[in-house]
Amino acid sequence: MELSLIYASITNDLARIEDGLKTISVVDFPWLAQLLDQGFGRGGKRIRPALTLLSGKFYTYRFMQLMYMAIAIELMHTATLIHDDAIDKSDTRRGRPTIYKLWGADPAILLGDYLFARAGVTVSFTKNNRCIRLFSETLMTISRGELNQYKNSFNLNQSREDYFQRIFGKTASLFSLSTESGGVLSRAPEKSVQKLKSYGRDMGIAFQVVDDILDFIGTEEELGKPAGSDLAQGTLTLPAMLLNERYPDDNPVKRLFQNRKDTKNVTLAIEQIRNSSIVEECYQTAREYCDRACQHIRDLPGDSSRQALIDLADFVVQRKN
Amino acid sequence: MELSLIYASITNDLARIEDGLKTISVVDFPWLAQLLDQGFGRGGKRIRPALTLLSGKFYTYRFMQLMYMAIAIELMHTATLIHDDAIDKSDTRRGRPTIYKLWGADPAILLGDYLFARAGVTVSFTKNNRCIRLFSETLMTISRGELNQYKNSFNLNQSREDYFQRIFGKTASLFSLSTESGGVLSRAPEKSVQKLKSYGRDMGIAFQVVDDILDFIGTEEELGKPAGSDLAQGTLTLPAMLLNERYPDDNPVKRLFQNRKDTKNVTLAIEQIRNSSIVEECYQTAREYCDRACQHIRDLPGDSSRQALIDLADFVVQRKN
Repeated sequence: MELSLIYASITNDLARIEDGLKTISVVDFPWLAQLLDQGFGRGGKRIRPALTLLSGKFYTYRFMQLMYMAIAIELMHTATLIHDDAIDKSDTRRGRPTIYKLWGADPAILLGDYLFARAGVTVSFTKNNRCIRLFSETLMTISRGELNQYKNSFNLNQSREDYFQRIFGKTASLFSLSTESGGVLSRAPEKSVQKLKSYGRDMGIAFQVVDDILDFIGTEEELGKPAGSDLAQGTLTLPAMLLNERYPDDNPVKRLFQNRKDTKNVTLAIEQIRNSSIVEECYQTAREYCDRACQHIRDLPGDSSRQALIDLADFVVQRKN
Repeated sequence: MELSLIYASITNDLARIEDGLKTISVVDFPWLAQLLDQGFGRGGKRIRPALTLLSGKFYTYRFMQLMYMAIAIELMHTATLIHDDAIDKSDTRRGRPTIYKLWGADPAILLGDYLFARAGVTVSFTKNNRCIRLFSETLMTISRGELNQYKNSFNLNQSREDYFQRIFGKTASLFSLSTESGGVLSRAPEKSVQKLKSYGRDMGIAFQVVDDILDFIGTEEELGKPAGSDLAQGTLTLPAMLLNERYPDDNPVKRLFQNRKDTKNVTLAIEQIRNSSIVEECYQTAREYCDRACQHIRDLPGDSSRQALIDLADFVVQRKN
């Protein structure tokens, strides 16, 4: 199903969020305005804002609160991407040059900091203490997840549990914040808030597993960056982990991790994973998390938002980029 | 006057803040614990927490709120230093190796992000919407100030106004947050809040002007980093600006900015500034801001906190590091 159809019930709301994001670039410091424009001009699927909006419509909500929360989350997400690109020395994202590539690591650090702050101001507009606290706690979880990934780059001794803990930190925690805050801001009963939170967490894990698959099977055009980027950075994702488990004595992932300069092993790993049942096995895992996510929200009231969340979970697993 | 004497009325409070800062390093991720310990172990004068405590004692305060605010501000300050060191590629701060030097730029970025987040969580404990919003607004101002400094490095065409605007952004804004939040949290009348805020701003400007002087006249031992560091980075501070104004045709600052690789001009600039009345002229400016700061708070009630703030402003101008 196409994203525009899934978003049908929140099309106008998302347009207002898009307008809100555009106003972020309106500052009386031309270079900063340019940086902000380059940081945001690249669009994206806006899945996180959509999650907050949809999760916020089961009970009694005030649109402005949901909007501030959704914008704050998208700002935080953008800030983390800008910092990640500086750390990974990534030249392109979504097919366009990164802030790192355009201006170098130093402006990328400062622009990310500025956006974290802008996000903090925006979340304060919700005037909801729980959401404000959750917001910063989530950024702690994300930074910690990124530090963990950095520390374990080129480390082959990582368990499945390490992997899922890591992707919860770097990705699913923000999905979970998106849905939990929607619940909190719409004054949902605590049980429903917890269901929405669990949906976000499991859906976020499915999202990241698929991201990790696409890094191996996507084309550079689909990905907007070279395939195998994660592996080249030394990040042990699920497909690479499975390859290493299947051929414990010798495989390109193992060889790369032993000698990170031997980058032809990235191409070899991509090839071997593409031509194996590993891809299907990983998709199976993603589908399981996706199903689990949908189970959590099965008895929430009303139909339209719940169906959109279910369709969005399906979309996440089936997407090509 | 010694800092310990100025802090006499808040010695116990500061000890509790120190304990609070120590608990930040208690995390179940050994590498992060180590990073946090290295990021904080270096101490510091804790002027900002002291400002919040002292400013918070003119009216009716709850200590816990002041404590959360003070800890949050010190965490934000530390996070910005960690990012600054990565940007400036500084090897030492307060005589000890920086996170950048010990681990590189990437962990420095992520540790800074983690601390911003931890600061955000801590300020949320105040449950005061105005302070929470001000907190993030200040980080916006700081990041913007740093971007401005970065953009204008090795730019000789900067006015006195540019300079004061820049040091407000990078330094005085956080002093101003420290004192304003103390006023807000102690339910001071708005007029008094504004006075405290203005005190913080002018005192912060005096602080940075002195910092900029010390960068030229301090010894490496006093500074905990090489003298002339700012100039070597291409930052045009007040003493360098005055030197350039006095000898507009030719001077070492101008030569360095024309050819940044010709670093012997840093040594020459230090020498020329030390042996001129520029130092005294800059101190005169710092003292004016310091006096103005004290004027703002002259009719606040009670004596002990006001006297401590006055003594602290004096200390800031007289300090050697």
